[in-house]
Amino acid sequence: MIKVSLIGAGNVGFHLHAVLQNAADVQLLQWYNRTKDSMAKHASNTNITDNITDLQEADIYLICVSDDQIEKLGANLGKRKGIVAHTAGSVPLEALKAHENHGVFYPLQTFSKQKEVDFHTIPLCLEANNLYSLKLLQQLAAHIGGPIHTIDSVQRKALHIAAVFVNNFSNHLYAIGEALCQEHHVPFSILQPLIAETADKIKNLSPLEAQTGPALRKDNTTIENHLLLLTQEAHKKIYSLLTASIQHQHE
Amino acid sequence: MIKVSLIGAGNVGFHLHAVLQNAADVQLLQWYNRTKDSMAKHASNTNITDNITDLQEADIYLICVSDDQIEKLGANLGKRKGIVAHTAGSVPLEALKAHENHGVFYPLQTFSKQKEVDFHTIPLCLEANNLYSLKLLQQLAAHIGGPIHTIDSVQRKALHIAAVFVNNFSNHLYAIGEALCQEHHVPFSILQPLIAETADKIKNLSPLEAQTGPALRKDNTTIENHLLLLTQEAHKKIYSLLTASIQHQHE
Repeated sequence: MIKVSLIGAGNVGFHLHAVLQNAADVQLLQWYNRTKDSMAKHASNTNITDNITDLQEADIYLICVSDDQIEKLGANLGKRKGIVAHTAGSVPLEALKAHENHGVFYPLQTFSKQKEVDFHTIPLCLEANNLYSLKLLQQLAAHIGGPIHTIDSVQRKALHIAAVFVNNFSNHLYAIGEALCQEHHVPFSILQPLIAETADKIKNLSPLEAQTGPALRKDNTTIENHLLLLTQEAHKKIYSLLTASIQHQHE
Repeated sequence: MIKVSLIGAGNVGFHLHAVLQNAADVQLLQWYNRTKDSMAKHASNTNITDNITDLQEADIYLICVSDDQIEKLGANLGKRKGIVAHTAGSVPLEALKAHENHGVFYPLQTFSKQKEVDFHTIPLCLEANNLYSLKLLQQLAAHIGGPIHTIDSVQRKALHIAAVFVNNFSNHLYAIGEALCQEHHVPFSILQPLIAETADKIKNLSPLEAQTGPALRKDNTTIENHLLLLTQEAHKKIYSLLTASIQHQHE
């Protein structure tokens, strides 16, 4: 039984709470957040606290707070025997080096409170300052169930940037698609099969091979027509820059 | 039984050939392309030709050639009783107005020859110059099986632009993600669950609600760190522009 204390109740903390509470061979000891509000509904089945000095001895402390608060929170934990690990993509391992056993437990996924996720499909990217900590984090990851990757801080940061491109930025392109649909009174749902297929295609094809469209074909008539129909300056700029980038990549 | 002649053997023609050949109540009369090469493997089960004057009388002629060839190909067809329809997102209905019955049969999906598609999920966007033609195109669409939308040329062009954003441009962001993974010796497959979830999320959430990440959080430390780690100028520019656009949209 691995005893875990969860720290933070943002999107990542919220979903880790759900999976840890149900994971076999894991005991979720306590859940800490600065304020109790966002944990309050779970007070009946989880020991919640807003006082960090209340935290009992755990095997692993999982810190799920915003990047710029991780180091400070690690310090506030005081001296701990257990592994102090954060869950962030862009924060180096050494942010927690004050602790004898420290590590990173980074679930590479997008989390929103409104959307359930399946941890069996979520890659868990692990790093630790010693073999003991790495092994215990691997055990915890195995109980949660997703594919496990041991990667260093630089690789993790690169992955986090790649994640910003494929997730945050793609989602923003969906938002632009939605805005264009609204402007022209077409339901956004009409684009959903295309969005699903675009994501599905690259399971078997490299995105380089999967590329299609007027930019790739250098179909300048269509490109100019599109730029004429776009009404927002920001959309025109994005269209032009990504068109040029596709053409550059396929030169 | 609707008699269809298919014109063009690019990505769209290739996949329409497959679905029309198997559709109930549809007879694929002939398949024309400028050269026979790309149709040759189907010569045993389809009447193929590279001579446009060979085309017999059909109920519907489906033109699947590049945008700038559609009008010319329509002219080369000569006088026809059947409906002459193109399959392009960005070409107006009137490109085929020389024909008594003309229309548009636009499957809103991304097609690559290497990737099978399921036409039952593909929205078919229809337009025609008269009710007779619209009804027959609707019948053909019903035999193919996807959701049917009747939209005008301006809406279709807007949809096509939106498709460029959500499909071509998102795919390019995946390609950038792949490049970053290669640069840092991490397998690209590690990003696939995130890509799948990003696309899946917006089935129930608006992309505006689904937005996450450093841009939305205005986490400038992370944004600056990411820009420092990116080695390609083009990637830096795209990162900055999309970050600014997300922040502008959520102001």
